[in-house]
Amino acid sequence: MTQSAMILLAHGSSDARWRAPFEALERDLAPRVDKPVVLAFMELSEPSLETRVAELLAQGISEIEVLPLFFAAGRHLREDVPGQLDAIARAQPVTLRLLDPVGQHPAFVDALAGIIESRVHDD
Amino acid sequence: MTQSAMILLAHGSSDARWRAPFEALERDLAPRVDKPVVLAFMELSEPSLETRVAELLAQGISEIEVLPLFFAAGRHLREDVPGQLDAIARAQPVTLRLLDPVGQHPAFVDALAGIIESRVHDD
Repeated sequence: MTQSAMILLAHGSSDARWRAPFEALERDLAPRVDKPVVLAFMELSEPSLETRVAELLAQGISEIEVLPLFFAAGRHLREDVPGQLDAIARAQPVTLRLLDPVGQHPAFVDALAGIIESRVHDD
Repeated sequence: MTQSAMILLAHGSSDARWRAPFEALERDLAPRVDKPVVLAFMELSEPSLETRVAELLAQGISEIEVLPLFFAAGRHLREDVPGQLDAIARAQPVTLRLLDPVGQHPAFVDALAGIIESRVHDD
């Protein structure tokens, strides 16, 4: 059976305080799901997508889904990230699949409604 | 009773395709919660925070919470947005409260775990 994994893809920043919540997400989520979940950054900070794919391949994992921790698909997700993934897939024996950004999943919209409701009830 | 509302604050972009999912969120969420919920952009696109606060004040609403549609609090949420809110609150009879970014709410982490699990089960 081909081993699969998921990369959570964040934008990236040189600001360690910006990166910290994403690193916390990776730590919180990894034990909650039953395949490897790792964090990568699109730019400005490591680990990059390329780094993560190489690590996963070294573990024998060649089917990788990439879930963008973005609310919306702007130019980065329409052009830059597909370009990065294509370049990686040409150079490595790996299947990469780019998912919709989390902001467009119904579960996210439900969570947001819940957060707003909980604030309403705090009044 | 003082009327209250919530502003969903997104980064903003000159790219209408980037803005569209946020506008969809506003449309989806407004009927699901029992106080006014409107969208504003921090920069690069309208409506701005200032525009939204003026509209809400014109409706007699002066208690406003601002929920950042950001995953992490970088410089924008630590400096730029508080600066914008302070300037507005000095100029207008309004109470503004900046909430943690949605990415740091437990409901968001739960939603993300659910999205990853649903992908795992698609395999």
